[in-house]
Amino acid sequence: MPLPPAAVAELQHLFPAGALTVDAGERLVYGYDNSRRQRLPDAVVFPTSHEQIVSLVRLCRSHRVPLVARGRGTNTTGASVPVEGGIVASFERMNRILRIDVDDRVAVVEPGVLNGDLQTALAPHRLFWPPDPTSAPFCTVGGNVACNAGGPRAVKYGATRDNVLALRAVAGNGETFRCGTPTTKGATGYDLARLLVGSEGTLAVVTEATLKLAPLPSAKRTLRATYDDVAAAANAVARIMAQPVTPCALEFLDDECLRLARAYGGDAIPAAGAMLVVEVDGEPDTLDAAVDAVAHSARGDGLLDLAIAATDAEVTALWAARKALSPALRTLSPNKINEDVVVPVSRVPELVAATRAAAAKHALPIVCFGHAGNGNLHVNLLPRDDAEMQRAYSALDEIFGAVIRLDGTLSGEHGIGLAKREFMPRALDPQALSLMQAIKRQFDPDGILNPGKLLP
Amino acid sequence: MPLPPAAVAELQHLFPAGALTVDAGERLVYGYDNSRRQRLPDAVVFPTSHEQIVSLVRLCRSHRVPLVARGRGTNTTGASVPVEGGIVASFERMNRILRIDVDDRVAVVEPGVLNGDLQTALAPHRLFWPPDPTSAPFCTVGGNVACNAGGPRAVKYGATRDNVLALRAVAGNGETFRCGTPTTKGATGYDLARLLVGSEGTLAVVTEATLKLAPLPSAKRTLRATYDDVAAAANAVARIMAQPVTPCALEFLDDECLRLARAYGGDAIPAAGAMLVVEVDGEPDTLDAAVDAVAHSARGDGLLDLAIAATDAEVTALWAARKALSPALRTLSPNKINEDVVVPVSRVPELVAATRAAAAKHALPIVCFGHAGNGNLHVNLLPRDDAEMQRAYSALDEIFGAVIRLDGTLSGEHGIGLAKREFMPRALDPQALSLMQAIKRQFDPDGILNPGKLLP
Repeated sequence: MPLPPAAVAELQHLFPAGALTVDAGERLVYGYDNSRRQRLPDAVVFPTSHEQIVSLVRLCRSHRVPLVARGRGTNTTGASVPVEGGIVASFERMNRILRIDVDDRVAVVEPGVLNGDLQTALAPHRLFWPPDPTSAPFCTVGGNVACNAGGPRAVKYGATRDNVLALRAVAGNGETFRCGTPTTKGATGYDLARLLVGSEGTLAVVTEATLKLAPLPSAKRTLRATYDDVAAAANAVARIMAQPVTPCALEFLDDECLRLARAYGGDAIPAAGAMLVVEVDGEPDTLDAAVDAVAHSARGDGLLDLAIAATDAEVTALWAARKALSPALRTLSPNKINEDVVVPVSRVPELVAATRAAAAKHALPIVCFGHAGNGNLHVNLLPRDDAEMQRAYSALDEIFGAVIRLDGTLSGEHGIGLAKREFMPRALDPQALSLMQAIKRQFDPDGILNPGKLLP
Repeated sequence: MPLPPAAVAELQHLFPAGALTVDAGERLVYGYDNSRRQRLPDAVVFPTSHEQIVSLVRLCRSHRVPLVARGRGTNTTGASVPVEGGIVASFERMNRILRIDVDDRVAVVEPGVLNGDLQTALAPHRLFWPPDPTSAPFCTVGGNVACNAGGPRAVKYGATRDNVLALRAVAGNGETFRCGTPTTKGATGYDLARLLVGSEGTLAVVTEATLKLAPLPSAKRTLRATYDDVAAAANAVARIMAQPVTPCALEFLDDECLRLARAYGGDAIPAAGAMLVVEVDGEPDTLDAAVDAVAHSARGDGLLDLAIAATDAEVTALWAARKALSPALRTLSPNKINEDVVVPVSRVPELVAATRAAAAKHALPIVCFGHAGNGNLHVNLLPRDDAEMQRAYSALDEIFGAVIRLDGTLSGEHGIGLAKREFMPRALDPQALSLMQAIKRQFDPDGILNPGKLLP
């Protein structure tokens, strides 16, 4: 169903030439994301102000037209694909850093600012914003807020929800509101700001974000530990996390990952049953003690080798397996399915065992790696042809089942989008889903905001 | 309006003898809290199971009877006073620690467990739960969850909202639901768990909480810095918070506090324009460097004296002013009004100046102290007679006005309850309030849960 002509006329009135396109070729590039799903929107607009977005939401509401807010489409779940058509609002021109308050460790930004650009602007002030998804150089803060993005640093500094203080937004009902405060503490009513974080643009369109910044550590040290098997590595993760020096990265690779990384990246990458790469950060004077504490915890039954980098070159060498992994996986399977399930740290061995069982049953390569300190594993299913692709979905179903049995949940940092929407009733009880649906109706009574996402 | 006889009969059926009281003398002690407000409930029950609470909520709903969940009544805002009568559910018998998962750093508790008892149970595992309100020995985890309690440690470890992973609850509509996951990351739908934290029992009755634990630091060091004036101290706070060693306490006292503490506690307490007490924690080997980093930041224009404790006795001496303060304030004014406003750290001098102006205008003692690292100040108004009490409310009104102008908010850690409810429209825009009211209606369609609180 195309846009009503009246809606098009209003759009043209609202957005000057160059800030609105209905050209099919141009629309094409705003209709997909990193999930490789695609749907052509009916129009794409490039807002530059809050007021424009208020008018846009009201326009969409009055014409019952879907509205999908879009950062740079790096998400992997289809959350920014306009599955029901309508209007995509790309925030690429609403990308100003409005303010950096060094004394208060706060930045106020428009949603279209790139995560990487923000970090660059913060570095001279010796500050950073903790969320660091792999896509940081080309994903937006607005997208990070929508998906509650994480990254390796989340183990020490928290994910996006932990690092957003306040938001300005336009609800699906067309009303502007502010929520949260630019302070690190607040107990004034219901926490609408953290409700919006992770809501994938289904409740409101965020037009301004007040972010909590952290002091940039002066130095960092890197360790690598290899183990006989996944269980030994998981035990080490639990020991590392139970002592007071919290690492700023605690990454895990299983034996399959190491095998693939070696095949792609060479024999300098260790062969082992599992590997951890650990980083600690802080003031230089504290780091020897921090490294000692982490190294002590990393040691234990099943440790094969513990290496501590002394030079930048050695740091690079310790990360080599992790860096080689992504291209190795892509080479093996251009259609890899990258999930980001999360389980309690102690259940990681059982999760890896469940993925092994699914891999064997469905004759399909499956590897596990990720942010072990949070129990957040990227289970990658690697189908090499259509038949394996079909089987991959059955395997995925079983893996999600195992995750729920292990007290975990569907997503640690990628969100739900389209990809995991149908699994929501397994992760949440019907009453919780019903409360979420009620909240959705309150914010967005006509269901115009990012329809078809997150809630089944 | 007394309880309908049918409701009393159902209550008697639901709660065995000894778990229900309608005796006026017994009810009296469940009708007040630390706000010194009071209202007699019609009945008090002592639930021991989730299932009982489901039945209780449904009973209250079917008879349109107010239900107020109660921890130990330590809150200062009237949030646990049954202003519309009805039933108080005291959680004092639902106080089991259900599980401590050391490897996952998670505890699962019933809401009635005392914060202090939980800390005692965790200590042998070298773990703790970060919220540490002054009332920790006799306040409940459920109350902490209801009010989003904080305390000095929040500056490093976050408040309650940052340290709750999952909840089981019964909404006002009588439906049981679980929200959150026992993992430190999650991006599966709307964050209902953090929506419940700080909702003061107005949305749902929590029956089980899964808490995020932190490793107990092995050691702690204490510093005290005195300054010429509040601005110099606030600048030091900003410098301390901008470097990578985050203190585990960063407490502030203004000159009025110091004067009163000296009058009460003796001349060992320094005379100064403002004072900071700072603590750093961690592994013993890291603490020298941490103390150096904080001491370096504490130095600057306006520093009078910097003391670093070397012994336990010296630690006690450095905290003496803070410890003497509460009894000193109580001696001066048994009816002190203790607010917990929060502003960006850089605005603390302006906030203190605004309280001075209000104190002068209304001829009323007002002192400021609190958790400076979060900009969370306990502004204490100290009326000594009825006339001053009347003027105190006018002064409070002006102080809240200043807080809002300074980009702050009404409460950092005490919540809203009755005390600040009427100020909510100044802190929040009408659209945000309206969304909160809509959420309230969804969870609690008949408005039975803690009526008259939080929302105006």
